[in-house]
Amino acid sequence: MADKKMVEQITSMEEDFAQWYTDVVRKAELTDYTSVKGCMVIKPYGYAIWELIQRQLDDRFKATGVENVYLPMFIPESLLQKEKDHVEGFAPEVAWVTQGGLAPLQEKLCVRPTSETLFCDFYQKEVESYRDLPKVYNQWCSVVRWEKETRPFLRSREFLWQEGHTAHATAEEAEARTTQMLEVYAKFCEEVLAIPVIKGRKTDKEKFAGAEATYTIEALMHDGKALQSGTSHNFGDGFAKAFGIQYQDKDNKLQYVHQTSWGVTTRLIGAIIMVHGDESGLKLPPRVAPTQVMIVPIMQKKEGVLEKAEELRAMLAADYRVKVDKTDKSPGYKFAEQEMRGIPLRVEIGPRDIEAGQALVVRRDTGEKITVALTELSAKIGELLETIQKDMYEKALAHRDSHTYDVTSWDEFKDTIENKPGFIRGMWCGDQACEDAIKEETGATTRCMPFAQEHIADTCVYCGKPAKKMVYFGRAY
Amino acid sequence: MADKKMVEQITSMEEDFAQWYTDVVRKAELTDYTSVKGCMVIKPYGYAIWELIQRQLDDRFKATGVENVYLPMFIPESLLQKEKDHVEGFAPEVAWVTQGGLAPLQEKLCVRPTSETLFCDFYQKEVESYRDLPKVYNQWCSVVRWEKETRPFLRSREFLWQEGHTAHATAEEAEARTTQMLEVYAKFCEEVLAIPVIKGRKTDKEKFAGAEATYTIEALMHDGKALQSGTSHNFGDGFAKAFGIQYQDKDNKLQYVHQTSWGVTTRLIGAIIMVHGDESGLKLPPRVAPTQVMIVPIMQKKEGVLEKAEELRAMLAADYRVKVDKTDKSPGYKFAEQEMRGIPLRVEIGPRDIEAGQALVVRRDTGEKITVALTELSAKIGELLETIQKDMYEKALAHRDSHTYDVTSWDEFKDTIENKPGFIRGMWCGDQACEDAIKEETGATTRCMPFAQEHIADTCVYCGKPAKKMVYFGRAY
Repeated sequence: MADKKMVEQITSMEEDFAQWYTDVVRKAELTDYTSVKGCMVIKPYGYAIWELIQRQLDDRFKATGVENVYLPMFIPESLLQKEKDHVEGFAPEVAWVTQGGLAPLQEKLCVRPTSETLFCDFYQKEVESYRDLPKVYNQWCSVVRWEKETRPFLRSREFLWQEGHTAHATAEEAEARTTQMLEVYAKFCEEVLAIPVIKGRKTDKEKFAGAEATYTIEALMHDGKALQSGTSHNFGDGFAKAFGIQYQDKDNKLQYVHQTSWGVTTRLIGAIIMVHGDESGLKLPPRVAPTQVMIVPIMQKKEGVLEKAEELRAMLAADYRVKVDKTDKSPGYKFAEQEMRGIPLRVEIGPRDIEAGQALVVRRDTGEKITVALTELSAKIGELLETIQKDMYEKALAHRDSHTYDVTSWDEFKDTIENKPGFIRGMWCGDQACEDAIKEETGATTRCMPFAQEHIADTCVYCGKPAKKMVYFGRAY
Repeated sequence: MADKKMVEQITSMEEDFAQWYTDVVRKAELTDYTSVKGCMVIKPYGYAIWELIQRQLDDRFKATGVENVYLPMFIPESLLQKEKDHVEGFAPEVAWVTQGGLAPLQEKLCVRPTSETLFCDFYQKEVESYRDLPKVYNQWCSVVRWEKETRPFLRSREFLWQEGHTAHATAEEAEARTTQMLEVYAKFCEEVLAIPVIKGRKTDKEKFAGAEATYTIEALMHDGKALQSGTSHNFGDGFAKAFGIQYQDKDNKLQYVHQTSWGVTTRLIGAIIMVHGDESGLKLPPRVAPTQVMIVPIMQKKEGVLEKAEELRAMLAADYRVKVDKTDKSPGYKFAEQEMRGIPLRVEIGPRDIEAGQALVVRRDTGEKITVALTELSAKIGELLETIQKDMYEKALAHRDSHTYDVTSWDEFKDTIENKPGFIRGMWCGDQACEDAIKEETGATTRCMPFAQEHIADTCVYCGKPAKKMVYFGRAY
């Protein structure tokens, strides 16, 4: 019975999803609370997931010509104020440094909530000629937003992210980069995190402070709530005009640059937990699993068992992230622990297996047990990891599709949002008053106007006037 | 003549080393100034060097069992104050956040200058039993110290670094980890950065605020000044007592943990510049060169030249970091530019080379020109990069050795420090009064008490009393 202790201590996800989430984060040892209110420690296991995200995303960025840089973490107040919409969006939620060393500062500095203003200041000096363009820079760093309510990974006062900031000669090029990066994010979520996403454009109400257009990828969590998982913004030449970023074109004329920015955050780890997790805990897609295979020796005190386990580890280590659990815990306890941590495959090896020249391989995602000859173990594991990656995506996709509802009337909308958690697809007239009213009455927000538009009805789901766009609605994190 | 423009614009290192350094940093496009006083932009080329340092150092850390984590960037004032020596050391140079969102904070938060206190707060909750030990954690982040005088990479208000923080059951284990990490740093500097270092212990005067012992690696720059390049601290159980970090040992007795911390920073890039650079600019050791080989097409408008250059690039790209300079600049300008950026090898390929089935390979470190058959190009480049890496180390070592002076009297000390820039080795009585007086009178500080002690004389170089230790002295950055 004690073996099940770890699992029993987590709340059922069907009973209380929020508490289940908190339990998983804690029991899988992803984060911890700190003495700094609203800020988290990202523990080794959580950070290792972030490193895998970082490495794979960074490779994808660099393949499109992105270069990494590092800009200061502080923004002088006067710099933050240069672009009107931007400062209005961020000023209420920034932290201010007012003292440096033993003296008060002449001008207070905010801790960056995002770095558009710093990049503009930088580009203003860097860009002179069309030869200096495009600038396609990115930085990996932490940012600070003074949130009132915080939850690990989903919303915290400090979080890790990457922020790409680009400057281009033409509006067309900026728009192409904006959608290109959204596509990079979408593919990354689908191929690496096994999370299907809806790609679309934010309404004016929901777009980024200072942007002309914000594109987003939206994912559906297990509880039917939406999670904005990455955004890409086209700023047009608004920031360039506010900061005076001009270049001389081929005809020696001064032109304003066109800019973009795009980012994803440690929030993606929250998405992984809430899309894939189950009653036994975390479930990691193989491509972001710090440990892909855990070898559990059975009757490990018997002669030769630990040695064999170690031999298998050494054999598999060339191709997979693999560990042996040699602790003195019971096998049952080890199983529960590895399930909690979401390790995709478990390999059990005991005296009888050794004698038979085989091992028992157990899938975390389905619980399926497969007896595999040791001579075929490595190949089989490679195959199973691919299968798990694919099956997890398919399962998440099926869940999303079965929790996406087309509605054509306001009554239907209200009934659906109350009784069927998920995405709602409905038509919209384009008027912000309807958007506001829908949010006010149901708590649902416009998640995006999907690129893949469909004609569901002729009229706005709220006001009944002629519809302009199909929109994804949902309650969101 | 215009081809030499880039080179001519830098100050001679023999005339004005400080200005030469600033020129190289700017012309090689490593950093830029910002609107935030004392903070720098690390530009793509500079950041790419940091990424290579990070990746290789991180691999070496992980090979010793280090796990990465992320802790908050803020430290509540009350937490910073828990260890007396530590707060005295850092409080005068920290930045304080006093406002979050629109309201003043109840307790002000400092932006981390280093994270000992945060790790202690974390370990205090994490460590209960001997089974939880050791904790061997590291984080890559930026820290802030409100310096008055700043210089790119060497001293800035915000800089990037890694900070390792460990907790152990015994004093012996903590001491072993402290020296192990110093050894990792020393080997990394020597093998990757091609910088020889002196390993030793800091005097009590120079040790880290709150440490029992600080170990250091000290490198000698081209101008004869020393640069502290990495430190590793043993805290004993001082922090553990201040923060109440206890564990239950195997006999169920409560014991305090023993802790260490260790770090290196973007300062290492400053060391690379000042150890290896020359009148033509930066000179990068191949292992940290973002571009190891630059292919320069000669008469690139002639048919087939650019194609051949691209073909060579594709062939070399599997094994080396290689680029083709296809810009419309003249070859001479390209050569000067690549010398400024310190790219280890240049491959020139023009119509006559193509006809002869060869290319001209030019070493950045020596200027040597080698004609190589295209069929042997890849192998030869691998060989040359190894040779350059080794030769750069040997050259730096010879420079250091020829600028290290043993002195036995105070007159000799004063003469040497004024007229022979470099390390001074001398005996010391162990009394801080002598150390203070030496610094006061000459500006030289004790760099370290080297592990490799030698008996140079019987008496202290300053006071003439019996000597206890041989010390490296020097003026330092």
